[in-house]
Amino acid sequence: MQIARVRGTVVSTCKEPSLRGVKFLLVQFMDEEGKPLPNYEVAADVVGAGVDEWVLVSCGSAARQVGESDKRPIDAMVVGIIDTVSVDNHILYSKKDQYR
Amino acid sequence: MQIARVRGTVVSTCKEPSLRGVKFLLVQFMDEEGKPLPNYEVAADVVGAGVDEWVLVSCGSAARQVGESDKRPIDAMVVGIIDTVSVDNHILYSKKDQYR
Amino acid sequence: MQIARVRGTVVSTCKEPSLRGVKFLLVQFMDEEGKPLPNYEVAADVVGAGVDEWVLVSCGSAARQVGESDKRPIDAMVVGIIDTVSVDNHILYSKKDQYR
Amino acid sequence: MQIARVRGTVVSTCKEPSLRGVKFLLVQFMDEEGKPLPNYEVAADVVGAGVDEWVLVSCGSAARQVGESDKRPIDAMVVGIIDTVSVDNHILYSKKDQYR
Amino acid sequence: MQIARVRGTVVSTCKEPSLRGVKFLLVQFMDEEGKPLPNYEVAADVVGAGVDEWVLVSCGSAARQVGESDKRPIDAMVVGIIDTVSVDNHILYSKKDQYR
Repeated sequence: MQIARVRGTVVSTCKEPSLRGVKFLLVQFMDEEGKPLPNYEVAADVVGAGVDEWVLVSCGSAARQVGESDKRPIDAMVVGIIDTVSVDNHILYSKKDQYR
Repeated sequence: MQIARVRGTVVSTCKEPSLRGVKFLLVQFMDEEGKPLPNYEVAADVVGAGVDEWVLVSCGSAARQVGESDKRPIDAMVVGIIDTVSVDNHILYSKKDQYR
Repeated sequence: MQIARVRGTVVSTCKEPSLRGVKFLLVQFMDEEGKPLPNYEVAADVVGAGVDEWVLVSCGSAARQVGESDKRPIDAMVVGIIDTVSVDNHILYSKKDQYR
Repeated sequence: MQIARVRGTVVSTCKEPSLRGVKFLLVQFMDEEGKPLPNYEVAADVVGAGVDEWVLVSCGSAARQVGESDKRPIDAMVVGIIDTVSVDNHILYSKKDQYR
Repeated sequence: MQIARVRGTVVSTCKEPSLRGVKFLLVQFMDEEGKPLPNYEVAADVVGAGVDEWVLVSCGSAARQVGESDKRPIDAMVVGIIDTVSVDNHILYSKKDQYR
């Protein structure tokens, strides 16, 4: 999984029918020092993540191991909202501090 | 999924039989600021996207979770035509404005 | 899929038994301007492509959705010989011109 | 598989239900000279690896070929704790020396 | 598949049980001119490759399409020992010459 920050949304009306009702978030990958990486993904969301939240993103076939996503052409999925990231015994990110 | 702009087409007569009738689009990936990335893909199309439209592209096994594509050697698929991309509460792309 | 040019062959006698009889081509990926990329793959061939031809290459599990390749450890496959590539309403490559 | 060093942990309370009870490690990939690469992954752990240990990480669908992980949206898994890495007849890493 | 040179081995005692008895080789990818690339993989071996030999490596789910590897968390496999690589009608590598 990759650590990413939710930066926006993508809306598509004309799409593959199995994707109806799927919410697409634009998420920017972060490195292990909390800095944005050049990579991003448009990921489906099953956990109700909001803009600026840090999330865990699963890519590839893993993104379809969720509920009814089995047969949908989805290759990236937000699978968790991150509470804390600890690196080298140091708290890199804490959701609580973020929203205080 | 990745955001991409349709730039052209690829035609192949001599191909794996299961690919007959599949339309191949050359799509250029875009970054989260709307600038073209160096990466591109030749993607099968199920939504009828046209040149210059922005689309959502699914890669890997996700590209085969569409109708009868299950058994075709396809690793990239245009799965939606994008209406809007919003980043940091700003509209990065709107199809309506594009074609006004 | 990626656009690639066939540059050579790889021969292996001592290999996983299911790969017997499979022809391996060394293919160099091309960018959307027709210039060679640094990436290459050794791809199995089902369409009989020859050296210098431009081909479509499918990677990952897509490479095994062909005939009896289902259970072979193959992660790249030449799935079509390219006739034409059109980019921005311009013919980038035409097999006919190539071999005139 | 990639060689990686465990650098920390990621905690997520609000996540896809099938991920409950899964421990997420932040692992940094190492190159073949033992230097850290810019890439990292958040990987599920089934072997009880601790901070600073060198581990083997499997990515993609391989990460789900473990016990009950079959249906979980996991795309990276720590599958072994490394004892030794030998490169060019030289011991690059030995766990015993590390913890002496 | 990628062309790689075997550079060493990785030993892990504490690992996912299904990996018992699997031999892990550290293989360095080579470019199409025979120069080492920065990428490497730790690959399972089914063909008995030795140090310095050039091999074909399959990545992703392809690595599990071998014998009993179906349910093992393996994402890279040495599937053949290379005899010759020909590029642009030139022999880039020949195992026979290598060991003369």
